[in-house]
Amino acid sequence: MGRIICAGLGPGDPDLMSLRADRAVRGAKHVAYFRKVGRFGMARRIVDGMLSADATEYPMEYPVTVEIPVDDPAYNNALAPFYDDWADRLETLAVTEDVVVLCEGDPFFYGSFMHLYERLRGRAEIDIIPAITGMSGCWTATGEPITWGDDVLTVLLGTLSEDDLSTRMASTDALVVMKTGKNIPKIIRALKRAGKYDDAWMIKRGTMPDQEIHKISEMDDDENPYFAIIIVHGKGRRP
Amino acid sequence: MGRIICAGLGPGDPDLMSLRADRAVRGAKHVAYFRKVGRFGMARRIVDGMLSADATEYPMEYPVTVEIPVDDPAYNNALAPFYDDWADRLETLAVTEDVVVLCEGDPFFYGSFMHLYERLRGRAEIDIIPAITGMSGCWTATGEPITWGDDVLTVLLGTLSEDDLSTRMASTDALVVMKTGKNIPKIIRALKRAGKYDDAWMIKRGTMPDQEIHKISEMDDDENPYFAIIIVHGKGRRP
Repeated sequence: MGRIICAGLGPGDPDLMSLRADRAVRGAKHVAYFRKVGRFGMARRIVDGMLSADATEYPMEYPVTVEIPVDDPAYNNALAPFYDDWADRLETLAVTEDVVVLCEGDPFFYGSFMHLYERLRGRAEIDIIPAITGMSGCWTATGEPITWGDDVLTVLLGTLSEDDLSTRMASTDALVVMKTGKNIPKIIRALKRAGKYDDAWMIKRGTMPDQEIHKISEMDDDENPYFAIIIVHGKGRRP
Repeated sequence: MGRIICAGLGPGDPDLMSLRADRAVRGAKHVAYFRKVGRFGMARRIVDGMLSADATEYPMEYPVTVEIPVDDPAYNNALAPFYDDWADRLETLAVTEDVVVLCEGDPFFYGSFMHLYERLRGRAEIDIIPAITGMSGCWTATGEPITWGDDVLTVLLGTLSEDDLSTRMASTDALVVMKTGKNIPKIIRALKRAGKYDDAWMIKRGTMPDQEIHKISEMDDDENPYFAIIIVHGKGRRP
């Protein structure tokens, strides 16, 4: 009788994986991970060199990523059968042996595994290994603490409307914006409206060997990877 | 020439420490950590059994914790010289050897080390090891994902006013409240005003062997440890 183990991999540097996740990954016989069609996959990249030589890999390739807007019903219509199918396959594998599902970041914080988890609850034993969030890796990489005293932290996704983004940006102390990518021009307009543009940082591939950290106001570059995170640090009370 | 290494220890379970933090702690010759006077200390407890036999320990005992309200100037007046003094001592130690400072949770997320960091920048080489936040440990322990789709996550401290808490609670999807302790009655009133009381969970000592997880509406217990975290899960879009 096996389990489905979701190993949170953290922000990208394999040395920031937990001891528990490291053991799960190195000992895995069956390893599943999400990726975009035609890509190696971020999660798979993080564990490169760690998998056992006899591990079987199961790339779970999204039928859609950014080609359809998330609020178009076609987006969910494409993804639901994909998750249904992989839930069935993982359940079958876990009847006899452990299966390790790799997840970059922290699995229960906007992670794709959550959609498998909802389908598999009650059908298999599931173990979730939490991890350092991408945002923690990014704010540490900036060299500035994110929250002081009783600073309020707000986490927003770039898919929200410009009005919603700017209102929420204006009312928080510390700010994280995730899922940036194509939404960057809208996020920048919202930061300006909220008076936070001059204090905003963009971190690309945080904690990875090729990480880049910029104040947004000093960037002249318009390559905006999906994994970029935008951060405004809190400035609260300090003795 | 030594460094000051701040090792984020994560939510409490030592198996959730990063590989890097684990190595730093086990290899440390000088280990400093915050604690309340007369207590063993949460950070020290997490690494119990991991320290080298010849490690020298430096308990940094807060001159004040909850005896003075955080908005009373006397609070900062008591803490500032304490942080000044320990910054000097750590700087002196780091002239010749590495010093590891233990921090529960993620150091740059409301961590006490930040106050030493602000004083030591430019005076010593400092390495911050990020960690799994206490809140990630807690939401994973509930068995429910914290954020779905484009859910907004707001993190609040229990030291905020009831009005501020309730307004912010009402306008977010997913919610975390930290530094609860004596603020619990106020936080509960704010949750009720915001219409989130029935969905709120309290997690005590999340990921530790004696963790407790309750829906707040089902609790009849009024022991509220400082390390309790309150969580309301988001319910956003999912395929």
